[in-house]
Amino acid sequence: MDFNSLVNNIKKKQSFLCVGLDTDINKIPKHLLSCEDPIFEFNKQIIDATKDFCVAYKPNIAFYESLGKKGWWSLEKTLNYIPKDIFTIADAKRGDIGNTTDYYGKTYFETYNFDSLTVAPYMGHDSVTPYLQHKGKWVIVLALTSNAGALDFQLQKLHDNSFVFEKVLKISKNWGTEENMMYVVGATKADMLTKIREHVPNHFLLIPGVGAQGGSLKDVAHYGMNKHCGLLVNSSRGIIYASHNEDFAKAAGSKAKEIQQEMKQILTENNIIN
Amino acid sequence: MDFNSLVNNIKKKQSFLCVGLDTDINKIPKHLLSCEDPIFEFNKQIIDATKDFCVAYKPNIAFYESLGKKGWWSLEKTLNYIPKDIFTIADAKRGDIGNTTDYYGKTYFETYNFDSLTVAPYMGHDSVTPYLQHKGKWVIVLALTSNAGALDFQLQKLHDNSFVFEKVLKISKNWGTEENMMYVVGATKADMLTKIREHVPNHFLLIPGVGAQGGSLKDVAHYGMNKHCGLLVNSSRGIIYASHNEDFAKAAGSKAKEIQQEMKQILTENNIIN
Repeated sequence: MDFNSLVNNIKKKQSFLCVGLDTDINKIPKHLLSCEDPIFEFNKQIIDATKDFCVAYKPNIAFYESLGKKGWWSLEKTLNYIPKDIFTIADAKRGDIGNTTDYYGKTYFETYNFDSLTVAPYMGHDSVTPYLQHKGKWVIVLALTSNAGALDFQLQKLHDNSFVFEKVLKISKNWGTEENMMYVVGATKADMLTKIREHVPNHFLLIPGVGAQGGSLKDVAHYGMNKHCGLLVNSSRGIIYASHNEDFAKAAGSKAKEIQQEMKQILTENNIIN
Repeated sequence: MDFNSLVNNIKKKQSFLCVGLDTDINKIPKHLLSCEDPIFEFNKQIIDATKDFCVAYKPNIAFYESLGKKGWWSLEKTLNYIPKDIFTIADAKRGDIGNTTDYYGKTYFETYNFDSLTVAPYMGHDSVTPYLQHKGKWVIVLALTSNAGALDFQLQKLHDNSFVFEKVLKISKNWGTEENMMYVVGATKADMLTKIREHVPNHFLLIPGVGAQGGSLKDVAHYGMNKHCGLLVNSSRGIIYASHNEDFAKAAGSKAKEIQQEMKQILTENNIIN
């Protein structure tokens, strides 16, 4: 999916919501466990209930991978079920080099037809640029994450007084363009978004950590929104586990709609939609 | 596998060689392609030919993952085929947090019974410590990699004049012990091993980049070996693709033996074996 299609979807759906499909076999409603493929059945119902309110889906690959071959099959079916006009993110946080990167690219952009892949920057340019050769695909680089461990390295100060994560932005933004690269920035660090927007004013930012992890949607929009919106805000547990009972899909849909309504207001206030 | 068993295997086999099973469907000999599972058949013959000369096997997960469900099945069979006294490394370079980490741990330490997993440190302590709760299992943290991109971030200077990769060593070594953590250090940076040994004198180091990538075994041993050996030196392409013909396994065995003989001499010179 290209930049303009994504921006147009945001305007059309009046939403910049990404739903995280972190589907955990131990957390889905018990009545689904008798289905042939409980993970896919859960995702299917979640997608049906939320697809009108979101512009992206983000399966966290760990949950599928942990189930072995069966899990990859559930992932494949889920990917095929997501409507084609919704942006898809393989949250795999890969980071490797050379021919390994070629293989990860093949996996997520060809075997599974994802629009984008999250990537860790620690190994540098040759762990990111090979993905950018896939036309129409995106790399989403970890910049500043929402977890406590972000302090350990991302927020170390360099000799030029910038943070490590700023160096990641500054160097990596030259590897691609705002039409094939995005950055992960945790919502729990919303005040840092001002600094981040100095480095990457036009890139899309994928923002986890709103809701369950305590970040505020208003703060994120205040500090991080640009003229194209430039934000995909992810919610996983807050939506998909809104209820643990038979009404889980309905509850997920209501929660997604509630967030979409708040997003619609923010998009209107920022003159991105009328 | 515990620390002492690994050290004893090194002494017994007079080797600190790790064979990288980066098995690429496009690079294996053509006559194998008619087998039911060419990837497993290749690995099986490579293992038979090299198992007497190495103490570890390291499948790079990308190669298996890119083949979808079939690839995971090849990986599972490969793991089961590796003799139990040989250390196994899932080279997956994972890095994520919280319940995601639990799932990656479950995948590599339970679904597949690997001894260890490579992990990227960018997200900090909560992306590494959860793995350490798996008794008898190891985390191998990327410190200084052998690729050109290592310059981008790992070799940035911090405000206290240390490199980013040194901060990774300094902080992360307190998360575990030398009995459940190792570090990846590229052989192409052998002179950096002196600095690295100041921070982690007793940890095992996993060293890729000898051979195909240009690193020298002698230099690595000179700067990096400690009294327990403390090194696992990986070779992938140099061994498994020593020949592209029907004699591939024999050629791999000869190459592995040649390296093992050089290692035997180094272990003797360093008084680790008699």
